[in-house]
Amino acid sequence: MSLIPLPQSLIPFLESYLPTQPKNNLPFVTLTFAQSLDSKISAKPGIQTKLSHIETKTMTHYLRSNHDSILIGIGTVISDDPKLNNRFNDKLIRPIIIDPFGKFNFKISQLYKIVIEKKGLAPFLIIDESTMYNNDEEDLINKFNGKVIKLPLLQNRNNNWNLILSELYKLGLNSIMIEGGATIINELLLQKDLINSLIITIAPIFLGVQGISISPDFQVELKDIKWWTGIQDSILCSRIK
Amino acid sequence: MSLIPLPQSLIPFLESYLPTQPKNNLPFVTLTFAQSLDSKISAKPGIQTKLSHIETKTMTHYLRSNHDSILIGIGTVISDDPKLNNRFNDKLIRPIIIDPFGKFNFKISQLYKIVIEKKGLAPFLIIDESTMYNNDEEDLINKFNGKVIKLPLLQNRNNNWNLILSELYKLGLNSIMIEGGATIINELLLQKDLINSLIITIAPIFLGVQGISISPDFQVELKDIKWWTGIQDSILCSRIK
Repeated sequence: MSLIPLPQSLIPFLESYLPTQPKNNLPFVTLTFAQSLDSKISAKPGIQTKLSHIETKTMTHYLRSNHDSILIGIGTVISDDPKLNNRFNDKLIRPIIIDPFGKFNFKISQLYKIVIEKKGLAPFLIIDESTMYNNDEEDLINKFNGKVIKLPLLQNRNNNWNLILSELYKLGLNSIMIEGGATIINELLLQKDLINSLIITIAPIFLGVQGISISPDFQVELKDIKWWTGIQDSILCSRIK
Repeated sequence: MSLIPLPQSLIPFLESYLPTQPKNNLPFVTLTFAQSLDSKISAKPGIQTKLSHIETKTMTHYLRSNHDSILIGIGTVISDDPKLNNRFNDKLIRPIIIDPFGKFNFKISQLYKIVIEKKGLAPFLIIDESTMYNNDEEDLINKFNGKVIKLPLLQNRNNNWNLILSELYKLGLNSIMIEGGATIINELLLQKDLINSLIITIAPIFLGVQGISISPDFQVELKDIKWWTGIQDSILCSRIK
């Protein structure tokens, strides 16, 4: 899907939520996703659902172009096979995949195609330190200047996000846009100290009870609320209180 | 909670979604509710949760003042003990309660207080035809010009809403605002032929997984989308496609 010119009103709307200098040896983190009215990000497990209008899709790429990197979970990679690149301008951003058990298959992914076409960077793959990742895959990722990063994820479940984000900061990433899936979003909504901006697109549709839900384990209050409304979608910019 | 002056931009925003002449011997029906980002209308079963900002709360009463009646389920009546009146102006609107098993206790309700104070009308209580409703309660409802309406609800589960709305139309109600709870909303989202307007307030908070969810059994698409954004909340006006 090709993008359209960015609606100009989005530039001042988003401005104060864009990455600033990182603090406390952690990258600036933007958590962002598109959901239905019934807070589903897809209609069924494993199914990619187009939710956002082309104008809010364009916003996503504008946001990506303002970050160093984009992070998602392996579940979303397996179900969507996403490109994870910035199509707003020529800036290359680093895809990061959280994949504790090393299921990612680079060779057959769209990500690989994008790298070959020089439209994106090879991924940083974050796996558990106990995982034996496929050697050929690892060699291929390294060949294109990606990285397989081993962290004690399974031993540190309660503190994983701090561990992951600190490590990515050490590797030179100053800003990360985290886009999903639901497990990652629901975990991070409860990590207010790690999330700097929260940007949600709401599409005016109900996907129904079988959809994949965004809803954290506990109540989460927001601050610095700002809404933008487009042709079809509404966008919320905020921070976690 | 007292209301504030209605934000003036809401008047043109809502105009084309307000009740018009009823058609097909059915009242004009507006389905409306306030939800969190994670599509919860309350934080826990049986707990009333204040979600909407005073300006969108004021809108609710402006909407009520544009209808003949307001309908909710007995579950919401038991958990919230709501006033169900119009506090925007002096127009009295008819409260309607769907209560198949006749659990409603008028004498101890806020509704009764409101009726005594002449700030609202006595309810129309819709019960199943097989239910033996308390005689004293029925006498009290009748005394204040309310009604206990017996319908074959349990025999007609698939067609209840048609039955209920036709009956209310016969009783002279030309417009009904349906406000909840979740069971009623989720059922009615699937009844596009019966719903004329759908107005949803979205409050920028996550109530968390224990909340009461709005999510219909199947996908529901919307049309005639219009968004309004206020100090805190976003409001969607639409119709079911």
